[in-house]
Amino acid sequence: MISDELKKKLIEFRKKRDWEKFHKPKDLAVSLVIEASELLENFQWKTDKEVSQMLKGDGYEEISQEIADIAIYLTYLCNDLGIDMEDVVSKKLEKNRKKYPSDKVRGSAKKYTQYKSK
Amino acid sequence: MISDELKKKLIEFRKKRDWEKFHKPKDLAVSLVIEASELLENFQWKTDKEVSQMLKGDGYEEISQEIADIAIYLTYLCNDLGIDMEDVVSKKLEKNRKKYPSDKVRGSAKKYTQYKSK
Amino acid sequence: MISDELKKKLIEFRKKRDWEKFHKPKDLAVSLVIEASELLENFQWKTDKEVSQMLKGDGYEEISQEIADIAIYLTYLCNDLGIDMEDVVSKKLEKNRKKYPSDKVRGSAKKYTQYKSK
Amino acid sequence: MISDELKKKLIEFRKKRDWEKFHKPKDLAVSLVIEASELLENFQWKTDKEVSQMLKGDGYEEISQEIADIAIYLTYLCNDLGIDMEDVVSKKLEKNRKKYPSDKVRGSAKKYTQYKSK
Repeated sequence: MISDELKKKLIEFRKKRDWEKFHKPKDLAVSLVIEASELLENFQWKTDKEVSQMLKGDGYEEISQEIADIAIYLTYLCNDLGIDMEDVVSKKLEKNRKKYPSDKVRGSAKKYTQYKSK
Repeated sequence: MISDELKKKLIEFRKKRDWEKFHKPKDLAVSLVIEASELLENFQWKTDKEVSQMLKGDGYEEISQEIADIAIYLTYLCNDLGIDMEDVVSKKLEKNRKKYPSDKVRGSAKKYTQYKSK
Repeated sequence: MISDELKKKLIEFRKKRDWEKFHKPKDLAVSLVIEASELLENFQWKTDKEVSQMLKGDGYEEISQEIADIAIYLTYLCNDLGIDMEDVVSKKLEKNRKKYPSDKVRGSAKKYTQYKSK
Repeated sequence: MISDELKKKLIEFRKKRDWEKFHKPKDLAVSLVIEASELLENFQWKTDKEVSQMLKGDGYEEISQEIADIAIYLTYLCNDLGIDMEDVVSKKLEKNRKKYPSDKVRGSAKKYTQYKSK
């Protein structure tokens, strides 16, 4: 999602402020939930139609910012735990391919709403 | 975080199953919270020491999987809304640089715990 | 929501297992998010119609259980922090009455979707 | 937790504003996560010691307000789905008593951190 160059800048930003000490893995996980919840807040109470209108207005910028926050904390957490995002996403995709063969689940709402990520 | 090639594969995986129709932006935001919360569950009730032990055991693999899920939904949401993650993270970093000048906030717990992402 | 008698039983249940020590306020707050998110999982990807069907089936029991979990953690947190739920809800209702006068906001979607709890 | 009288006032408050139509079960579940996450925000980045200090200051009032919001949405959701909170919490407590016999789990961190609500 983001380049190695930008990742380096994020790590540097944190180091310069001596903020690594606050970024315990548990607190980064807490922060990911908080940011994801702030993203969701932009959709609260809204119908599909109202979501479309919101996305054409100020909502788009606000959503972009929340997405950036999620990506930033995710980058820090992966960095700190030595997790290679390309690698884990790749493996998860392979797993999902086996779990949901396209010829069996294609377009099935039932299969999809019963979908569990684990 | 993930390459354009892998992003293409994720989009293709979804298309082949005809699952785009389930991925309304609001439901993707709901899913991001759910996955972030499943990530957090691995840290629930644990002290720093217990987190370290958990990360040396099975927890590491489980956490990797939850991080993959978050990255996957984030990729879909950005794709669907036309949001360039590199771009929004870059801008957010610039914003944070101005908001938190390193010479003023360096190592300050007070400043950091009062930190709000908005 | 729940009687003083049941509240006592919950406190006793915890005491008998010597579990108070795990219930730090921060971890109870983490647990509330996790349980609320498990509640939300029952609604993930579902349209209004699918939610109705789910509520007529197994979903009803699952949702009842998640609601119980939320109520239990909320009871523990209020007990531990000395917060009187009747009192804080009462005050919040008064606050909301002033903030949203019924003659001004009645049935207004716009006002409602702009509603912020703070 | 809250009296039948206060519950009636909450229902009346909503009715007077013609807001029932916004309170679809899925949106109430979304709102519960958002409020629980706002509660958690007060604990973000904080150590046990910093939490204690926060609770002696402005944090206490903020936390009380977030708890009120959670209790309010929980009350609406139970009302709308015909769920008796006293009843579901009672049954959950019975279930937990069988699942976690006090003589076996007493004070055990291992058992507790492996505790799953389901």
